[in-house]
Amino acid sequence: MDIAAIDAAAARLEGHIRRTPLLHADALDAIAGRRVLVKAECLQETGSFKARGGWSAISALSEETRARGVIAYSSGNHAQGVARAAAKMGAPAVIIMPSDAPAAKIAGTRALGAEVVLYDRGLEDRDAIGAKLAAERGLHLIKPFDDPHVIAGQGTAGLEIAEQAAALGVSEGDVLVCCGGGGFASGIALALEARAPGMRVRPVEPEGFDDVARSLQTGAIQTNTRQTGGLCDAILTPRPGDLTWPILQRLAGPGLVVTDEDALRAMALAFEHLKVVAEPGGAVALAAALFHGDALSGDAVVCTISGGNVDPSVFARALAVA
Amino acid sequence: MDIAAIDAAAARLEGHIRRTPLLHADALDAIAGRRVLVKAECLQETGSFKARGGWSAISALSEETRARGVIAYSSGNHAQGVARAAAKMGAPAVIIMPSDAPAAKIAGTRALGAEVVLYDRGLEDRDAIGAKLAAERGLHLIKPFDDPHVIAGQGTAGLEIAEQAAALGVSEGDVLVCCGGGGFASGIALALEARAPGMRVRPVEPEGFDDVARSLQTGAIQTNTRQTGGLCDAILTPRPGDLTWPILQRLAGPGLVVTDEDALRAMALAFEHLKVVAEPGGAVALAAALFHGDALSGDAVVCTISGGNVDPSVFARALAVA
Repeated sequence: MDIAAIDAAAARLEGHIRRTPLLHADALDAIAGRRVLVKAECLQETGSFKARGGWSAISALSEETRARGVIAYSSGNHAQGVARAAAKMGAPAVIIMPSDAPAAKIAGTRALGAEVVLYDRGLEDRDAIGAKLAAERGLHLIKPFDDPHVIAGQGTAGLEIAEQAAALGVSEGDVLVCCGGGGFASGIALALEARAPGMRVRPVEPEGFDDVARSLQTGAIQTNTRQTGGLCDAILTPRPGDLTWPILQRLAGPGLVVTDEDALRAMALAFEHLKVVAEPGGAVALAAALFHGDALSGDAVVCTISGGNVDPSVFARALAVA
Repeated sequence: MDIAAIDAAAARLEGHIRRTPLLHADALDAIAGRRVLVKAECLQETGSFKARGGWSAISALSEETRARGVIAYSSGNHAQGVARAAAKMGAPAVIIMPSDAPAAKIAGTRALGAEVVLYDRGLEDRDAIGAKLAAERGLHLIKPFDDPHVIAGQGTAGLEIAEQAAALGVSEGDVLVCCGGGGFASGIALALEARAPGMRVRPVEPEGFDDVARSLQTGAIQTNTRQTGGLCDAILTPRPGDLTWPILQRLAGPGLVVTDEDALRAMALAFEHLKVVAEPGGAVALAAALFHGDALSGDAVVCTISGGNVDPSVFARALAVA
């Protein structure tokens, strides 16, 4: 995979995906002790960067494959990204979601016209369920991160970060990226390698689900012991992907780890100073920028708010900790 | 006042004020029964469109006047707009705020370096307090809406609406604008007259504070009987301004009126589908677009979210009504 794949994805996404703003607020700079530039992917179609990868993957399929339909498994953001792209391109979509996914994400996916199949995250194997349905109906599986077209689609956010940061005079420093399986982080890392080589991706994960940070530290793929629990539903993945890991190992790190409490505080500060809605998993990079600055260097830091699909009760909890 | 004043303000604002996005969400279109385009001024510097007028007014002062300092009275958004512009241009700023203004707005104004003077909205006369302080210290008064430079600054949002709507194929229809004294509505109306003559400003006010709607209906300035109460603190003004009224009478209307409950529901829907934070007074235009569509015509409607400076407790209340 290289920059050509990301440029090709950007051409397919043109007119269908938003160029999200790079936000800032003096008050956040004061907390962080450096300039903080926030790539607000919560303002993306479907409320997260996953709309990029979904569009990229489905737009790359042949017409026949698209007509048979697609299938995806997701806690919600990839679900909505795939469902939207499928609906707009006329492809049937089946989405396999954990029954404990946020209600907002399940409802959002259904509203986009997809057939939602729920499973028990602790007891059932989503891969097996997906494989069976795909075989029965001839559906094409769109993996959440280990797919070159998905990685290329997420990487288009990196093209925008390189341009938008340069326009603000920032061409080097850390780019903190919310990280589950690593599709967003690896896509952005590939884009920056070509277009902003002075910038480096630093994956950010929630405590207890820091497989990427530990993998980068040890130089070999590490897994998480837990599969559930924690607030950051969007980024609770068991291990780095087979495609994303080599990219991350070559271009990204060291990783950073934040607590759920950090994520909630970052959500409250994004509400107060940026006027945007971040979900817990989408707020970990901002949390690292604000509360773990000692692990960073440079006068400026870029961080992603990767998504904003959060249930009102969880958001109210974040407002209460502020 | 004409378009030349707005173009001149736009030139002074360049590089200091954000070009805010025109957001949309299929789910909101479905509720409204037409295409809804949302000018998200909550993402503006200081969290509201008032940063435009503040910058416009202070940048138009002579250096000597600026050095003596400025004074403003405001429930909070004009306060922050003036305080930010004054701080960035090195002018001392005194802001007179009602003691019942949202804590977030008082804190935000102080954080921007202004001297905040609180008064009792029910008992004291802010104009008298302001006039006394201005005279004592030689401060220049920046009125919240009845100032040509303020109106021209707010009008720069209208230039952007004309361009952004045209880029989406929309060149006619209603533009719903949250309305207090009418600075935002009159500025946008002047910009649209010149740059999008097929679009018309429809001021939107909260129930009980519909002085502009009644003035437009009767053809003469009407006043509100109440000065306080209601959730929409940003737009609780006694009557249309002497400068804004003739512009509104010539170019805008009929007005629309929504309830506080409508505003709260619109805040919740902006949270859910746009991932932005709207304050009650900033959500009335979206509320009219979503819940009062029978008073509108055309396939598309533009509405402003004029600000997002809301206390967490009020926002939590909006989430609870959703």
